[in-house]
Amino acid sequence: MAAGIVASRRLRDLLTRRLTGSNYAGLSISLRLTGSSAQEEASGVALGEAPDHSYESLRVTSAQKHVLHVQLNRPNKRNAMNKVFWRSDLLDELHHAFSPGIDLMDMASDILQPKGDDVARISWYLRDIITRYQETFNVIERCPKPVIAAVHGGCIGGGVDLVTACDIRYCAQDAFFQVKEVDVGLAADVGTLQRLPKVIRNQSLVNELAFTARKMLADEALGSGLVSRVFPDKEVTLDAALALAAEISSKSPVAVQSTKVNLLYSRDHSVAESLNYVASWNMSMLQTQDLVKSVQATTENKELKTVTFSKL
Amino acid sequence: MAAGIVASRRLRDLLTRRLTGSNYAGLSISLRLTGSSAQEEASGVALGEAPDHSYESLRVTSAQKHVLHVQLNRPNKRNAMNKVFWRSDLLDELHHAFSPGIDLMDMASDILQPKGDDVARISWYLRDIITRYQETFNVIERCPKPVIAAVHGGCIGGGVDLVTACDIRYCAQDAFFQVKEVDVGLAADVGTLQRLPKVIRNQSLVNELAFTARKMLADEALGSGLVSRVFPDKEVTLDAALALAAEISSKSPVAVQSTKVNLLYSRDHSVAESLNYVASWNMSMLQTQDLVKSVQATTENKELKTVTFSKL
Amino acid sequence: MAAGIVASRRLRDLLTRRLTGSNYAGLSISLRLTGSSAQEEASGVALGEAPDHSYESLRVTSAQKHVLHVQLNRPNKRNAMNKVFWRSDLLDELHHAFSPGIDLMDMASDILQPKGDDVARISWYLRDIITRYQETFNVIERCPKPVIAAVHGGCIGGGVDLVTACDIRYCAQDAFFQVKEVDVGLAADVGTLQRLPKVIRNQSLVNELAFTARKMLADEALGSGLVSRVFPDKEVTLDAALALAAEISSKSPVAVQSTKVNLLYSRDHSVAESLNYVASWNMSMLQTQDLVKSVQATTENKELKTVTFSKL
Amino acid sequence: MAAGIVASRRLRDLLTRRLTGSNYAGLSISLRLTGSSAQEEASGVALGEAPDHSYESLRVTSAQKHVLHVQLNRPNKRNAMNKVFWRSDLLDELHHAFSPGIDLMDMASDILQPKGDDVARISWYLRDIITRYQETFNVIERCPKPVIAAVHGGCIGGGVDLVTACDIRYCAQDAFFQVKEVDVGLAADVGTLQRLPKVIRNQSLVNELAFTARKMLADEALGSGLVSRVFPDKEVTLDAALALAAEISSKSPVAVQSTKVNLLYSRDHSVAESLNYVASWNMSMLQTQDLVKSVQATTENKELKTVTFSKL
Amino acid sequence: MAAGIVASRRLRDLLTRRLTGSNYAGLSISLRLTGSSAQEEASGVALGEAPDHSYESLRVTSAQKHVLHVQLNRPNKRNAMNKVFWRSDLLDELHHAFSPGIDLMDMASDILQPKGDDVARISWYLRDIITRYQETFNVIERCPKPVIAAVHGGCIGGGVDLVTACDIRYCAQDAFFQVKEVDVGLAADVGTLQRLPKVIRNQSLVNELAFTARKMLADEALGSGLVSRVFPDKEVTLDAALALAAEISSKSPVAVQSTKVNLLYSRDHSVAESLNYVASWNMSMLQTQDLVKSVQATTENKELKTVTFSKL
Amino acid sequence: MAAGIVASRRLRDLLTRRLTGSNYAGLSISLRLTGSSAQEEASGVALGEAPDHSYESLRVTSAQKHVLHVQLNRPNKRNAMNKVFWRSDLLDELHHAFSPGIDLMDMASDILQPKGDDVARISWYLRDIITRYQETFNVIERCPKPVIAAVHGGCIGGGVDLVTACDIRYCAQDAFFQVKEVDVGLAADVGTLQRLPKVIRNQSLVNELAFTARKMLADEALGSGLVSRVFPDKEVTLDAALALAAEISSKSPVAVQSTKVNLLYSRDHSVAESLNYVASWNMSMLQTQDLVKSVQATTENKELKTVTFSKL
Repeated sequence: MAAGIVASRRLRDLLTRRLTGSNYAGLSISLRLTGSSAQEEASGVALGEAPDHSYESLRVTSAQKHVLHVQLNRPNKRNAMNKVFWRSDLLDELHHAFSPGIDLMDMASDILQPKGDDVARISWYLRDIITRYQETFNVIERCPKPVIAAVHGGCIGGGVDLVTACDIRYCAQDAFFQVKEVDVGLAADVGTLQRLPKVIRNQSLVNELAFTARKMLADEALGSGLVSRVFPDKEVTLDAALALAAEISSKSPVAVQSTKVNLLYSRDHSVAESLNYVASWNMSMLQTQDLVKSVQATTENKELKTVTFSKL
Repeated sequence: MAAGIVASRRLRDLLTRRLTGSNYAGLSISLRLTGSSAQEEASGVALGEAPDHSYESLRVTSAQKHVLHVQLNRPNKRNAMNKVFWRSDLLDELHHAFSPGIDLMDMASDILQPKGDDVARISWYLRDIITRYQETFNVIERCPKPVIAAVHGGCIGGGVDLVTACDIRYCAQDAFFQVKEVDVGLAADVGTLQRLPKVIRNQSLVNELAFTARKMLADEALGSGLVSRVFPDKEVTLDAALALAAEISSKSPVAVQSTKVNLLYSRDHSVAESLNYVASWNMSMLQTQDLVKSVQATTENKELKTVTFSKL
Repeated sequence: MAAGIVASRRLRDLLTRRLTGSNYAGLSISLRLTGSSAQEEASGVALGEAPDHSYESLRVTSAQKHVLHVQLNRPNKRNAMNKVFWRSDLLDELHHAFSPGIDLMDMASDILQPKGDDVARISWYLRDIITRYQETFNVIERCPKPVIAAVHGGCIGGGVDLVTACDIRYCAQDAFFQVKEVDVGLAADVGTLQRLPKVIRNQSLVNELAFTARKMLADEALGSGLVSRVFPDKEVTLDAALALAAEISSKSPVAVQSTKVNLLYSRDHSVAESLNYVASWNMSMLQTQDLVKSVQATTENKELKTVTFSKL
Repeated sequence: MAAGIVASRRLRDLLTRRLTGSNYAGLSISLRLTGSSAQEEASGVALGEAPDHSYESLRVTSAQKHVLHVQLNRPNKRNAMNKVFWRSDLLDELHHAFSPGIDLMDMASDILQPKGDDVARISWYLRDIITRYQETFNVIERCPKPVIAAVHGGCIGGGVDLVTACDIRYCAQDAFFQVKEVDVGLAADVGTLQRLPKVIRNQSLVNELAFTARKMLADEALGSGLVSRVFPDKEVTLDAALALAAEISSKSPVAVQSTKVNLLYSRDHSVAESLNYVASWNMSMLQTQDLVKSVQATTENKELKTVTFSKL
Repeated sequence: MAAGIVASRRLRDLLTRRLTGSNYAGLSISLRLTGSSAQEEASGVALGEAPDHSYESLRVTSAQKHVLHVQLNRPNKRNAMNKVFWRSDLLDELHHAFSPGIDLMDMASDILQPKGDDVARISWYLRDIITRYQETFNVIERCPKPVIAAVHGGCIGGGVDLVTACDIRYCAQDAFFQVKEVDVGLAADVGTLQRLPKVIRNQSLVNELAFTARKMLADEALGSGLVSRVFPDKEVTLDAALALAAEISSKSPVAVQSTKVNLLYSRDHSVAESLNYVASWNMSMLQTQDLVKSVQATTENKELKTVTFSKL
Repeated sequence: MAAGIVASRRLRDLLTRRLTGSNYAGLSISLRLTGSSAQEEASGVALGEAPDHSYESLRVTSAQKHVLHVQLNRPNKRNAMNKVFWRSDLLDELHHAFSPGIDLMDMASDILQPKGDDVARISWYLRDIITRYQETFNVIERCPKPVIAAVHGGCIGGGVDLVTACDIRYCAQDAFFQVKEVDVGLAADVGTLQRLPKVIRNQSLVNELAFTARKMLADEALGSGLVSRVFPDKEVTLDAALALAAEISSKSPVAVQSTKVNLLYSRDHSVAESLNYVASWNMSMLQTQDLVKSVQATTENKELKTVTFSKL
């Protein structure tokens, strides 16, 4: 996280690139909504039929049933961008376990002239802001539905914080990734240094990226495992991400969401702890009708997308 | 783990494939037996000289001194298969620290009609079963002797649980891997979701495999690090695995088994904790004659396989 | 760690290779010294102007401002080598948080004839020695300045302990890596088994290397992520390492060193713990002038190396 | 946590006791508000001057400067009680890091007829509710200001969840404590089983209380360390709690709140981890003016309450 | 744990005391058996009606419904004692998750003349034995039913290992406790040093007891929290323990056993981890009929012992 | 830890009290030296025979064989005191695993005028100092020999940091304890907040002491478990501490020191982790001759002090 003008610089980087018609226009997230609640279902329909939701710089469309397509829209002013990145109104709707959003514009000016009568008080204040920024990305992990990042163009600074909090990363051939924070005089503190080592697990490379802020192109991202697939261009990448989202959304939401919860648990715990946890988790989840339906479909050689699973 | 018919389905998948002469016939494990106890030694000899052990669907041969070759034999009926996978009679012989095996057939019917007067009691019962299933694979880790998996054909569902609990994975060009559980409506709970993220460490790929149940072919398995080598076919793979087992079995059992214990410890602990543990471990293990013998052999340019190490 | 003559053998391996003009002559470390203390600064100047420091078998030159080049010199006698590897006089100068060095020669003889009236006392004694050996490499991690290893020729046994404790690894095409300990009858206990699984994260490969002591060549080291780049030969490798060191040293020392501290913290903790830690860390570090300077340079399109950061 | 009518029963227990003029009327919390924000300051004044805040069943008075007295008022109907216990509107005002409150009445009916088409879905739903209940008490810990519980009469079920999340516990002679959950057929899941063992640390007693639901009277509570002081009656207890709150509020808020943050961190981490954390915490907090002011006051033999510390 | 004659000495200590009519005759355990399986139920009846089970030196009686009274009988020879303490045949029957018992007599001689050709092999062998000894007491914790220790006379060495693994400790006025291991030249390694600090939590006292092997009498045991109640003599203690067992056995087995599982989890994890775990646990356990039955009983002012809960 | 004049104030508090003949004159530590190295043995003799070691303000006498009595002497000037408290020259001699001492006087002035060009650099500098202060007390834990604190008079601020790092605490009736830091505007950061909650385990009391800085008298210290015994006056306390030291020093050093190592390990790890660790620890330590000697002595009814154990 950055105090003062640094935060806005990071945002501006992202913004500028896009405003100039650059290759950053389309970092997008496909959110799967299988088993959404009644209310979400309704709004889901609305998304499909009516004018799409308009979240200023976020373009939200209902790509297909159970798949929500959140696109970082071409914002035409800075304020809007802020809200896109740091407020999580949208994500908040998708999953209720989320604290109130952050109004970055209010914060931005505060960061430039941080409040507090002495170093301790300024520190206290800054820690609070850092924690809120972190929370914006934590919500992606806490949302039990898989989140897929389809990256094209530059993914820089906060963009890396964002995509490392996603579950699956696809990118276009023109994509590049940059852990930019060291160049603005700070250690990345809203997710990159915390998650990247657990995402690509090539310690030497992670360190090199973090110490130098150099660009990593698509092929190296694929080779190192930051992304699991690379596609020719933006459109193909997005199509692949949406197809993946559709594929996942055809499966049992109990199976899919239980899988996400337990994969994240395993990342942060020993094998023994993780086995203990999943046993306590699955002692109830195995009593789902989805299991019977899934097995039946397989037995009858039906595709899972022909099966109707209850909402979760 | 799967309630009801799911568990049997997973087994059946594996079984069917093999019964139809498919490519799954030969997932096999080479178990190294260096330093086996007197009793094991004797039976080891027996294995070599006499008709091999016959564990119904497991074919166990004494490939060479100190190397036990456990082959999932082509079972001709379902019961046998169950015992192969879920009972660990054989593994139990290799290392005594193992709880009684599981008679899946008894369990299978129970799962289909789970016992218990209410949800809590059924849950309690299911948790107990999941824990026992987990234990079947835990024993591979708890056995201090290296276990090598030589995979050809399909390695699906329980097969992935099994190979991720092994120490080294080789595969044939025709091998493929599938985290199948999501397709039968459950989160994998006997090892895959817990160990795979620590085995290949490409978070995006692990998630993609677990959410989609798609096949991963041999080359991708090599590229991502699930296997460390790929060979043209089943026979070459098996030969390589046995050669590797022979190579390892020529070395000091104190060195080899201490290495396994500490590598597994390191996987689940911080570097500082692991350094502390190995210091307490090696304060006795360094007092072994194997060290003197090994150094002497190296000094005299003798191969280690000419050295006789005491049983461990 | 090795009792008795094993330790000296490991050292001898390394030594012999070098004495015979072999390919091991140049495992070298580039230490970045941005923001060194006044005293270091002074000696840094001395390094540049005067005859370079001479640490017997270590050749230390001031490659460029803020970059210290530590070269394992061609030592012509065994004692010297010991001091290079196991004493950390030099490293100690670079960072004060370091315990007194180890005089291996004194220890070596002790190990050959370990002190102690019974097994428990010998064990106690050996544990103490192991811990001290470990500490030699821990200091590289504890030093908050990035350490880059530029490897050519063989990197064997203690060499792997050393480079896995470094932050970034580059190597020449002729480099190879060998976890040699199993061949001398012991489990590696001063860092390799503890750090390698967290460095390359290909469990099957790590295990294979540790159980077999086979050589891993440069290409496999790159593919598996042990090194992040491979270069044609020793000179190019070294130039690249020094260029990398120069690049890093041009950036804010607050940003660079905070990044190292937090990357290491993240390696050993969960994401939640790491986010909490960095928030408490950065609440003060964000109040640095480096941030203002860095942003200003970026805004004015100046290179960071034109900026003067205060010592840290 | 309780499904169905259990939750309401627990609430009713508490409620009934109070409605019948019983001895449970006065479980109260004194919240220290030193260094409150401008807005809080303002409302603080309002509290003092104007008719006190009225939160239905919570009676909130401004006991004295920087001390907020929150009293569980004698509610005359069930709904109100619910809001007192499970919504945290008030606490939310005191510290912003808090998620939206819980409208128990909506939940209560849901629990009685839990939503979900199968066991897995009902489980998912219940887990969500349990987590929200837990959060209600977590907020007391997350609030960096010390919270003092002054208990008189019965402290039962949810009451124990509440007071174990507080920092200091005083009680009147007539107080008693009861871990009631086992009597309504469930394991306590919103804090008691998780915190009580870390609060009183007499394992045998904790287990006995949790397995039997027996009452623990004031003297045993003092002897076992659940409370740190016992007073003759409700009024004296409350006066003592308020005096303690006043005493604490006279000290540096940087010192007090840093102390709370680090005491809680120490509870859940090893000594080594805790020392590392406090070092990173205090590297900024030691740069406070409070330190200079406090030392000066001590040097001049002035009482701390004569010192004005800035808001935190 | 003790090598050689030490182990037998510890046993002998316990034995001798009893054989000579000393005050150690009655360390006993009341095991609650609510919700036992069909087979257990049957044998439970047998226990009540027929001649009680006879486990050589263990006297097992069915004190009352759902309560099993296991008494360390006055064994008349050493072998028997061994089996009582170190084999867990009985406990094994009570809960199936238990590995095969230990035949101490076979081990004892082995320990006196430990197997192994060098220090490393003897160490390996000893570690295996220690682990098995530990497992004997771990089973008490792993058994989800509460275990109550009713101590009279001396509780020495292995006795402390035993009672610290129990859930609740009552003792007679004549009881004393002694961490005896230091006097026989070893650090206690089968539970005392690991559990005692988490049981009584008075670090200074725990250390003093462990360093000096001094006796701690009943009053100090009560004051420090090792036991939760002290009674005049053996009979009263036992009656109280049985009454407690009866009281607990009248409650919902889902509630009681879930409570034990979660209390033990909380002991070894942070509050945050424990809250997460119990939420996943209770999402199924709250769907029990016990909850409805318990609430109903309370509402109707019936005692819980009039309610019939299903087996668990 | 304290920035600026605070640190010196804390020291001055302690100092003043003593200079004015106050009740703080005699906080003393008895260090057990069983099995000291040859060099220590020699100096031990010297201690007994010759004029005692003179460490300025530390008075070091050889109370009896294997027991070193370190007394905080009445220093007559401030500098001396600093060295007593913050340098660990003496402790360093007792156990070699210790980093270089701290020259507080150099530091003190630095703290008053902390170095660093901006907040980040001052923070970096302060963190380094805090860590060094912490290390001074950590060495007491890292020393495997038991350390007994015999407290009389006031034990304030740094005194509490010191005694909570000791293994056993005795005090005189006139002793009192004060967590003073909050009164000088900081959170205690060199041990008290980290260790006190694990020493006395009465959360409410610990918090109260830390938030209020109130005095805790001897009786409350005993009741809460901070000390394990209280004696009438300074002399009796000291005699008791020395007698305890003598008692401990008569036992096997392998047993005693292994006990300390494992008790500290247990404090910071789960029971399962601790059992694993002690098994690896004792697999060598059980092979000690001390075990045979101890058992023999017990069998022959000889006191342990008549046995000669080898040095450790």
